[in-house]
Amino acid sequence: MKKVVLPKDLNGKTIFVAGAAGFVPGHLSEFYLKLGAKVIGVDNFITGSRSNAEYLLKEYRNFKFYEMDIIHELPLADLKNEKIDYIFSLASPASPIDFAKIPIEIMRVNSEGTLRLLELAREKGARFLEASTSEVYGDPQIHPQVEDYVGHVQINGPRSCYDESKRFAEAMTSSFRTKYAVDTRIVRIFNTYGPRMRANDGRVVPNFINQALRGEDLTVYGDGQQTRSFCYVTDLVTAIHNVMFSYGPGPFNIGNPDEKTILETAELIIKILNSKSKIVFKELPKDDPVRRRPCLAKLQSISDYRPQVDFEEGMIKTAEYFKSLA
Amino acid sequence: MKKVVLPKDLNGKTIFVAGAAGFVPGHLSEFYLKLGAKVIGVDNFITGSRSNAEYLLKEYRNFKFYEMDIIHELPLADLKNEKIDYIFSLASPASPIDFAKIPIEIMRVNSEGTLRLLELAREKGARFLEASTSEVYGDPQIHPQVEDYVGHVQINGPRSCYDESKRFAEAMTSSFRTKYAVDTRIVRIFNTYGPRMRANDGRVVPNFINQALRGEDLTVYGDGQQTRSFCYVTDLVTAIHNVMFSYGPGPFNIGNPDEKTILETAELIIKILNSKSKIVFKELPKDDPVRRRPCLAKLQSISDYRPQVDFEEGMIKTAEYFKSLA
Repeated sequence: MKKVVLPKDLNGKTIFVAGAAGFVPGHLSEFYLKLGAKVIGVDNFITGSRSNAEYLLKEYRNFKFYEMDIIHELPLADLKNEKIDYIFSLASPASPIDFAKIPIEIMRVNSEGTLRLLELAREKGARFLEASTSEVYGDPQIHPQVEDYVGHVQINGPRSCYDESKRFAEAMTSSFRTKYAVDTRIVRIFNTYGPRMRANDGRVVPNFINQALRGEDLTVYGDGQQTRSFCYVTDLVTAIHNVMFSYGPGPFNIGNPDEKTILETAELIIKILNSKSKIVFKELPKDDPVRRRPCLAKLQSISDYRPQVDFEEGMIKTAEYFKSLA
Repeated sequence: MKKVVLPKDLNGKTIFVAGAAGFVPGHLSEFYLKLGAKVIGVDNFITGSRSNAEYLLKEYRNFKFYEMDIIHELPLADLKNEKIDYIFSLASPASPIDFAKIPIEIMRVNSEGTLRLLELAREKGARFLEASTSEVYGDPQIHPQVEDYVGHVQINGPRSCYDESKRFAEAMTSSFRTKYAVDTRIVRIFNTYGPRMRANDGRVVPNFINQALRGEDLTVYGDGQQTRSFCYVTDLVTAIHNVMFSYGPGPFNIGNPDEKTILETAELIIKILNSKSKIVFKELPKDDPVRRRPCLAKLQSISDYRPQVDFEEGMIKTAEYFKSLA
């Protein structure tokens, strides 16, 4: 496949980021602001953080922000005369803790929200990128996961509001490509961590770090031998950027293939923080995936992408961020 | 599981049928009209047939019909003072021929449409049944298919606008059950045939019958050894009825487990119609499922459901219907 040529700067380009006050989209917005693009961010703050949006508004004059729910509206009057070049669909809540709390909102943003963004892309002639997820593979039965794998998702399980709605968002993206020739990309994001991630969203990295900082025991679910492949957020942003400027629709797995057990992760965090916390074990929740590791061959066939931040370095930076909040 | 007790009549009950001008929902509406229920049908005629709606309006004074798209509206002003007891979500186009033509409409009715019906069920305290499909299993790798099977669906294939949106509709249904305690049921419909099915929708039974009636060759895709399990429409309606009045949410497979090859089906139709047509073979389309057979153990554990109409008898009745149109 043709190799991606990354732009040197994006002066004069306009980028639309749905979910801009979230963890990954906040970093992505900053990346494009630094490249000189105008970035239009929207968020309804259902899970996004006001401080992320305020930070970007304070630091970057080329950042514009609208508080709104893309299910119901887009800033259409304001966008009427605006040229938009690239649209990022990153508005879905993605933390396990959200699945039981706001399942309908998650399903609506991935269906109605994605639809509205695709219609905007069609109208503006913009390129559209859907931020899908490794969750489309469910509890995968093959390792590492390749993009052709159809996945192993419980249709009516506790995670299905997210897993199924992201599969739906991908299918909707492909349908707009096939039916209306919208120029689309799909990435499947694996576990990501880094500064500015939500503190209380039930994900393992902030959980462990905050438990260690408070001197509490670190809670490992199951025997801790289940694995995740953690990608530092700046590496993830680079991967998204590579796909947006690539020539193929994807889907592309993006992340870091460096697989770690949950137990190793807990031990590393205790070490980094010089913590006296112990590790305690609790029952594994239903449908929690046992292994996750992206096969990056497809992404690497079209780009020079290699993760740059190793596990310990990334964890130290992330721990410093959480310390600074305390 | 507790066995279903079927009501003797439904006088005084109101039933809402989305997609009432379609093949299966038309028969279902008539079944409930005969049981004395008031039936409120809606359809936008995107694939439903005006003659189905006109037939019901002419024959049954207890049938009320609204032409509308449930994506955009429900007859809410009219329904304001109406008690609704049972809601059937049967509005999705379901024929392979629709997948390339109206993928976005299919995805919207299964997301936004299903959402509106679930909201109506919540508001009215009605029981809700989602008509899902064997397509949630994709091209299944286990036979027969049991309800726990996670399926083998291509997320971004030519059938995914339908397969993924039905998985989404199921997950949405389950989310309303979990989050808002809406009383829900899910059925997964396998291949169905019978009088009043669409003539030109790319399905194998009307294709074969019409080819035979016109003296044309019958087109078999692939080698004809792929199987389907065809259920006669009145048996299917009985199965849906059993599930609506059951005590568990499902999903329940419904259909007829009598598996036939496509080639056998072609041969039977030629025999029934005394046709001189020959059988010709063409290339199998992408993602066409190789085998389909429902395991009915779950449905039969809660009901006395047994299909009543055998293959030859059902095909004769269906052929008579298509002859009467010619």
